[in-house]
Amino acid sequence: MAVGKATFPEMYPVAGFRLGTGSAGIKKPGRKDFVIMAFGEGATVAACFTKNAFCAAPVLVAKEHLQQAAPRYLITNTGNANAGTGAEGVARARQICRALAEHAGCRPEEVLPYSTGVIGEPLPTDKILSALPATLSVCSEDGWTDAAEGIMTTDTRPKGASRRLELDGQVVTITGISKGAGMIKPNMATMLAYVATDASIDQPLLQTMLRQAVERSFNRITVDGDTSTNDAVTLVATGASKAVISDANQQRFQDTLDEVLVELAQAIIRDGEGATKFVTVEVAGGASASECLKVAYAVAESPLVKTALFASDPNWGRILAAIGRAGLDDLDVQKVSVKLGGLLIAENGARAASYTEEAGQEIMNREDIVIAIDLGRGDATETVWTTDFSHDYVTINAEYRT
Amino acid sequence: MAVGKATFPEMYPVAGFRLGTGSAGIKKPGRKDFVIMAFGEGATVAACFTKNAFCAAPVLVAKEHLQQAAPRYLITNTGNANAGTGAEGVARARQICRALAEHAGCRPEEVLPYSTGVIGEPLPTDKILSALPATLSVCSEDGWTDAAEGIMTTDTRPKGASRRLELDGQVVTITGISKGAGMIKPNMATMLAYVATDASIDQPLLQTMLRQAVERSFNRITVDGDTSTNDAVTLVATGASKAVISDANQQRFQDTLDEVLVELAQAIIRDGEGATKFVTVEVAGGASASECLKVAYAVAESPLVKTALFASDPNWGRILAAIGRAGLDDLDVQKVSVKLGGLLIAENGARAASYTEEAGQEIMNREDIVIAIDLGRGDATETVWTTDFSHDYVTINAEYRT
Repeated sequence: MAVGKATFPEMYPVAGFRLGTGSAGIKKPGRKDFVIMAFGEGATVAACFTKNAFCAAPVLVAKEHLQQAAPRYLITNTGNANAGTGAEGVARARQICRALAEHAGCRPEEVLPYSTGVIGEPLPTDKILSALPATLSVCSEDGWTDAAEGIMTTDTRPKGASRRLELDGQVVTITGISKGAGMIKPNMATMLAYVATDASIDQPLLQTMLRQAVERSFNRITVDGDTSTNDAVTLVATGASKAVISDANQQRFQDTLDEVLVELAQAIIRDGEGATKFVTVEVAGGASASECLKVAYAVAESPLVKTALFASDPNWGRILAAIGRAGLDDLDVQKVSVKLGGLLIAENGARAASYTEEAGQEIMNREDIVIAIDLGRGDATETVWTTDFSHDYVTINAEYRT
Repeated sequence: MAVGKATFPEMYPVAGFRLGTGSAGIKKPGRKDFVIMAFGEGATVAACFTKNAFCAAPVLVAKEHLQQAAPRYLITNTGNANAGTGAEGVARARQICRALAEHAGCRPEEVLPYSTGVIGEPLPTDKILSALPATLSVCSEDGWTDAAEGIMTTDTRPKGASRRLELDGQVVTITGISKGAGMIKPNMATMLAYVATDASIDQPLLQTMLRQAVERSFNRITVDGDTSTNDAVTLVATGASKAVISDANQQRFQDTLDEVLVELAQAIIRDGEGATKFVTVEVAGGASASECLKVAYAVAESPLVKTALFASDPNWGRILAAIGRAGLDDLDVQKVSVKLGGLLIAENGARAASYTEEAGQEIMNREDIVIAIDLGRGDATETVWTTDFSHDYVTINAEYRT
């Protein structure tokens, strides 16, 4: 299940960035499960990885390689996360990098490995190695749509976003893909995203801009509060266009980059495991951003709020209860108000006098729902996106390995 | 659904503590939904309440009355939580206390009110007032079993625990009941418990002993991480036996009190909404109790771990992932080990060499499962009890108001 119609946007190619998709037969024979991305020597690369202490072997190796060289290849398999695999898992991730380096004629540390799928199974390196040459040979700048399918696991639809903007008379392209449907939570989850631009950007600036865009997008979504061992967002600037990002034009590029990442992050929520609703939780009037986030996540991750959303039940009492247990010091409940799709449902610690069950029901029947909370004690605001909690979520996650 | 056979223990009466159960027809005509508990003027009372900022009207009134007088009556309705009801809700809770005081011949502040049920609906005071005289008239020391049923909401079975111990040649009784099945989380949930003893205990000592017992029982259980607006645990010492609790015999009484509260708390988990498993999460080797609890709750509340438990799937990778995201500084995953029902499943950041899927499966098929985690960095230990996450949980909570 997923929320809204499946639409895949037109994907503008990024000059100097090529993608090849293949099938290594890791989970099912014939399924696209293997993607190689290639770019030239002048490119800069920025990346953000999971903060999970049990981070996967490919995350450890990718971080190490980023310290040693400027990357030229990204190699991704699905069906197996190569996580919880200890020293043997690290050895296997290195083996994949070495094999690609040999075929492509680069150094192993110029390859960043990515894996997503089941945790704790040995990575089937033989299958990956045998699919490698053919996949490398089909890399092209038009490979985005295939790659978006090639990185899917429990996703029901590919996820992409693409923008063009003009900077100093030059057309600049930003195009990206993402995957993920469960184990989704800030600091990323079983979530991968790859974004490329043909602008020329120094690596430190690229990293700063990526971190800011991730903070506004992937770090503001949650399906189930579970953060995975493999999450990574990677941004490549090939420099193939003549546009150079500097202090003067940085903001416009950042705005468009933010747009692309928000679109990719929201696509993950719309495809959330078992999702029937796309829910925006806006918290305003906080004393700080961090307390707004506490409240937003308490509401967005409450199983009781999420099952009420699934049932299209305007059970606003559960929203109040979630706000109340978010752990804010000295919260004055008299000052808190809650709106559902613009409709005032609670204020002064109780149901609003103007509220009617019929009006609440009409809003809860929608697919896209905004829960807007005002804490009435400051100027900070934060927004988080989430889904409801359905029977299908339980089915998908109870039967994932069978 | 619930875990294990429904057994209700023999409930030893507590001298000086009487219970009456009636039907006010709040949700369904004829259902037991109303309980009055009565005790003499010499009794001492201790209580712990929810920390939810949106705490219910009866919680506000009960706290206030505890400041003003020694209680003589506890009055409880189900079917309506009188929470999220603002000033009008407080007025209605007071009205109930006044009415009971008039009938019973005491002062209103000698009555503590309790409510549990749907949040945000006006308390149907007329129904409660009309059921009050008959319920008061049936109060007796043998009323425990009826009262255990009278406080149930989504519970599928009554919950009770009862112990006798000898102190200084005197037989002392501790008997209690609890209710709750969802919205269960430390600092209590939609959870009520009432415990009485015939020992004589000064109020400050009684409060200290209750707080300690709650910390080891009700504050160590979680169904869904949701803390309710109405939780309360109340302990009454009637002093009707000749036993006086002092420094000398305090520990033995505390141990038995802990036992009663742990049994009542675990009964709530066994009856957790949609529960098919009773899960003990033991965390050892922590640098502090608080970090053990962080890890225990990250595992116990992970929807992915809980759906795997529901599926009897030994998907231990999800346990590692939950430990990894618990937010511990500098966790060395090489030192972490995880056992399932005594079987070593993971160590050195990977699956244990001795582990087999068959052995893991055999343990996951059981109804009672112990997940034992050693963090390998200290001497602190903590234990938390929880359930799995099933289709029935979604059904129960999606359809609660329909």
